[in-house]
Amino acid sequence: MIFETTEYLERLRRTKEAMAARGIDVLLVCDPSNMYYLSGYDGWSFYVPQLLMIEQGHHQPVWVGRGMDANAARVTTFLEWANIVPYPDDFVQSEVRHPMDYVANQLRARGWDRGVIGCEMDNYYFTARAFRHLKDNLPGDARLVDATGLVNWIRIIKTDAEIALMRQAARLVERAMQAGVDAIRPGVRQCDAVAAIYEAQIRGTEAFGGDYTAIAPMLPTGIGTSTPHLTWTDQPFKEGEATILELAGCRLRYHCPMARTVHLGPPSDTFAETAKVVVEGLNAALETAGPGVLAEEVEAAWRRVIERHGIVKESRIGYSTGASYPPDWGERTLSLRPGDKTELKPNMTLHMIPGVWMEDWGIEISECFLVTETGAEPLCDFPRELIVKA
Amino acid sequence: MIFETTEYLERLRRTKEAMAARGIDVLLVCDPSNMYYLSGYDGWSFYVPQLLMIEQGHHQPVWVGRGMDANAARVTTFLEWANIVPYPDDFVQSEVRHPMDYVANQLRARGWDRGVIGCEMDNYYFTARAFRHLKDNLPGDARLVDATGLVNWIRIIKTDAEIALMRQAARLVERAMQAGVDAIRPGVRQCDAVAAIYEAQIRGTEAFGGDYTAIAPMLPTGIGTSTPHLTWTDQPFKEGEATILELAGCRLRYHCPMARTVHLGPPSDTFAETAKVVVEGLNAALETAGPGVLAEEVEAAWRRVIERHGIVKESRIGYSTGASYPPDWGERTLSLRPGDKTELKPNMTLHMIPGVWMEDWGIEISECFLVTETGAEPLCDFPRELIVKA
Repeated sequence: MIFETTEYLERLRRTKEAMAARGIDVLLVCDPSNMYYLSGYDGWSFYVPQLLMIEQGHHQPVWVGRGMDANAARVTTFLEWANIVPYPDDFVQSEVRHPMDYVANQLRARGWDRGVIGCEMDNYYFTARAFRHLKDNLPGDARLVDATGLVNWIRIIKTDAEIALMRQAARLVERAMQAGVDAIRPGVRQCDAVAAIYEAQIRGTEAFGGDYTAIAPMLPTGIGTSTPHLTWTDQPFKEGEATILELAGCRLRYHCPMARTVHLGPPSDTFAETAKVVVEGLNAALETAGPGVLAEEVEAAWRRVIERHGIVKESRIGYSTGASYPPDWGERTLSLRPGDKTELKPNMTLHMIPGVWMEDWGIEISECFLVTETGAEPLCDFPRELIVKA
Repeated sequence: MIFETTEYLERLRRTKEAMAARGIDVLLVCDPSNMYYLSGYDGWSFYVPQLLMIEQGHHQPVWVGRGMDANAARVTTFLEWANIVPYPDDFVQSEVRHPMDYVANQLRARGWDRGVIGCEMDNYYFTARAFRHLKDNLPGDARLVDATGLVNWIRIIKTDAEIALMRQAARLVERAMQAGVDAIRPGVRQCDAVAAIYEAQIRGTEAFGGDYTAIAPMLPTGIGTSTPHLTWTDQPFKEGEATILELAGCRLRYHCPMARTVHLGPPSDTFAETAKVVVEGLNAALETAGPGVLAEEVEAAWRRVIERHGIVKESRIGYSTGASYPPDWGERTLSLRPGDKTELKPNMTLHMIPGVWMEDWGIEISECFLVTETGAEPLCDFPRELIVKA
């Protein structure tokens, strides 16, 4: 168990409080990050349906998942065996039955099938068909409501124990980024640089190791830097070209992401100038961030800088991050963008990544930061600049 | 582009044929593996909604995705720019609008909003809310039907070009497995072994490099071997304990998985005997597999062996594998289990993984094989046995 049982119970208490405020009797938690947060459950089993059932009157979450994964729940959670419910394997990837039929039966058997049932309607691991099977197998008086993000919004403020893990993740990404920057040279294959990155991410330090990250290393290079989400190939890096590295360190599922841009050989004036503007805008946004400031105000500080230099960027410049599973290390709550009036509070952790992507080139330089009592503290110590390798 | 354009067009033709057979006018393809298969699209952008629209009368798929990813479609697909449609960033992870609103508008604008629209209702990347937004924004005469697996069932038979990539993936997993087996010793941290595994997976050979796998290395150890999907920690391996490695090699998104079990020090008689039974059952199933044989007959061959030895296993022993993205390297079609009457055909590739998990221990020894004209050919060359390290 990663955290004290009392910490899990406090998370559960806050979840039930949020459920009550929205009139939810039973919450079905399919998001693996939320399952981990509330129970400790940790395994790569989210490719089949699994969930926690949180019921107002029940003292623990109830885990429902595939039979072979029940022992994973036993090994990684604080749940009593009676609250670990396996479903038979013939429900897996079947065209005639669905695990949500089984979940509906479980709800009925416990008398939890009446009243308001909250579902994470927009989570990757709650498909359109899952919803249909659940609905079709529950009585007419069950009301299914959308509770996407309910737990995510609780997770947005970290405890000190979580912050300690975020700081360890920062040490991991510093090492991974350095390994990547060191490896990128003309003629070196992209896959060889990424091998070095993975090695550093996972081996970690003498004191602690690293976990798999919720997003693979992203490594657009050359014209690929015009878009952020390309991964690597086995082609060599080329003199005169830029490469973007967006990586994270992951410690016990807690992520600290970082992006940097490496240019092999002298960059054009435009490229170098744009990198300076990106850093200036990032600095301005970091100086603005702090408790009581709105998410959109942080973005506005960035926008004022780039507008002065004639740069346009339409996309958000950041998001909340923390414990996560593939495919996303963001928490899918706060976004740093116009219209987001979420107030920043101490112990939030955000990844500020004001990437700029043009017709055939781009630049990313980012910081993951902690909102403190007085401002914003970057978690990593890594030169905040375009890296030019001669 | 990984394949010739003609190969993509043939895949498209077969998809339209399958659509016609089911009366589908427009297919919305959200599964990233299917998007890759039909267009070449390759980026870690599936954490936001994206899809291909396949319309019977249109000569190419139409990609719809986030603005910043449009250049990724330009770089990785054969699609014309006119068939790459970006949506604005304020649709991303918003509580007031959803990318499927935008998709519905696109369908309307093209006159593709009438008739029968197929959706991959049970794919990770088509959520319950996505379906609701799509439905609410289409006119009453659009009929949305479930087309989960339509493209996956086409993918189940590989072309020779795909088989060539599977064979390269086999070389990658052989190296990764050897690196893991070599690294596992008493006192070595689990994370250090996994660092070596990743290094080998990604660096690959001098001729080609490796890609990220759709599932992270799984490495249950000690009591953790009683369940298959645990990953690693930074604790040391212990003398007298077993460790299961389930890994894959991935070449241009094509996976070859393999599982082996390592025991540090002499295993108990029960453990050693069970390992022998697993290998005997695996061999029997491999000898049975071949063209014209049903999926359930392959499983029955395994079952006959283990029943003779008094071992019970409830879960399926294999599945189709190939090109994939997280969270699953399976294709979610054929399963080797009772009741699956799919006929094996040449150029199918299956991962046969008859794992056995007991109260507090377990064993996995697997093979990924190709169905040939005459039988089954394992893709890897790696000792098919329990590995005991003295």
